[in-house]
Amino acid sequence: MNQSQSTDRRVYGIHSAMSMLQQSPRQIHRVLLAEGFHGNRLKRIREEALRLGIRVSTVPRSTLDRLARGATHQGVLLETVVAQAKSEQEFEQEFEQWKNPFILVMDGVLDPRNLGACLRVAAAAGVDAVLIGKNRSAPLTEVVHRTSTGALDSVFLVQVSNLARRLDWLKDHGCWVVGTQLNASNNYLKADFVSPTVVVVGGEEKGLRQLTRAKCDHLVSIPMFGNVESLNVSVATGILLYEVQRQRAGELGRTESAK
Amino acid sequence: MNQSQSTDRRVYGIHSAMSMLQQSPRQIHRVLLAEGFHGNRLKRIREEALRLGIRVSTVPRSTLDRLARGATHQGVLLETVVAQAKSEQEFEQEFEQWKNPFILVMDGVLDPRNLGACLRVAAAAGVDAVLIGKNRSAPLTEVVHRTSTGALDSVFLVQVSNLARRLDWLKDHGCWVVGTQLNASNNYLKADFVSPTVVVVGGEEKGLRQLTRAKCDHLVSIPMFGNVESLNVSVATGILLYEVQRQRAGELGRTESAK
Repeated sequence: MNQSQSTDRRVYGIHSAMSMLQQSPRQIHRVLLAEGFHGNRLKRIREEALRLGIRVSTVPRSTLDRLARGATHQGVLLETVVAQAKSEQEFEQEFEQWKNPFILVMDGVLDPRNLGACLRVAAAAGVDAVLIGKNRSAPLTEVVHRTSTGALDSVFLVQVSNLARRLDWLKDHGCWVVGTQLNASNNYLKADFVSPTVVVVGGEEKGLRQLTRAKCDHLVSIPMFGNVESLNVSVATGILLYEVQRQRAGELGRTESAK
Repeated sequence: MNQSQSTDRRVYGIHSAMSMLQQSPRQIHRVLLAEGFHGNRLKRIREEALRLGIRVSTVPRSTLDRLARGATHQGVLLETVVAQAKSEQEFEQEFEQWKNPFILVMDGVLDPRNLGACLRVAAAAGVDAVLIGKNRSAPLTEVVHRTSTGALDSVFLVQVSNLARRLDWLKDHGCWVVGTQLNASNNYLKADFVSPTVVVVGGEEKGLRQLTRAKCDHLVSIPMFGNVESLNVSVATGILLYEVQRQRAGELGRTESAK
């Protein structure tokens, strides 16, 4: 079962907000309060959220009206995460099952639409898992879900607390780690993707962090043939992941016919 | 020179609006008027725009304030197209220069962000030209320009009045026309992209029109390995165009070394 646990997308009203804060605070991405809110219960919600390290924003009441689609929100609405990532323990268990691991690592994809688009193409390309850094990724909100066209629910998505250490673990377990970097001198077509493969893509602005880069066996780039500087991260990810599948299909073809 | 002619992005004020309506109406995408506008000159602008077949919308005055960034707009602002596509005559002239034509045709990409993203990847992949249908494409506005990260200015972009007839012309001139269609039984990897190639991608919802499909020499699809139905059009375009370059690089390598 690769299904992630989906929860309600919008939670509003004082009672619902308070019970979610008490029972499942990790599913709350942000607390929205109406401008000029007053009353002890709203104040308590704000204090409780801040104590738990959850972001609190005040917005015009009309914004809450719109988000709650006309329902009675009493001045508070929670933006929740719509999926829970898998734990690293679950990942290690699953890993044993994969015959020829094919893993995507995203290091610092902070824009939720880019994250969703990458999950969509990762699902299409049939990766075994997607790994994201715990504090180096957009939260798994409604926007991610929508742009992933549902892939957020079907991909085996893992939040990793220490990406560098996890890359070491993957190398110890026989994976070849290929990082992508603008202007790396090796063309991505020269990489070996037939072996157990980890493809590492970086964030929109900065690419791979130095620490992540240092863990890669191989750094490759997608050549720019025309007058643009770079590709969108989801497009680059699509080109790389489908090259993995192309090489593997070719290998299979050769194994079946020629050998 | 592949440079398209860029114009000002925002035109506002009664005098400027009127002169643009008279001198270059084809560069106007839409006329925005402030809600409750009055006065003969604004009425004349509205009538003139409608007569020319240009869309007119009334919006809150605060929207105009924002779009004009605080400048005096007098209740009118024009959304203009930021680039002019090339003519078919120019295309035919240029075509003679290309040694091994590599052309992208977009049939009904109506979302401006998708159009921009496709132009970005088309530029990156080094296509000779991008062809779009005259009434089957998003207009070349600011949004297209921004999402293309400037590729709108560098790609040889042609607006075609009759796409089916143009595909016939391309076939008569030695091109191999490969259309992409969800669930087509041929894998895109089996297509020959080494010969002069036209890649045809369809719109977000409906894919290729029947008439366009009928003109293709070959219909291919990108396989879905996981639990999603389709790829975003710019991601699919990226995978296809880079496969063209991969095959051509391979062919070159073989020609140089083995033959």
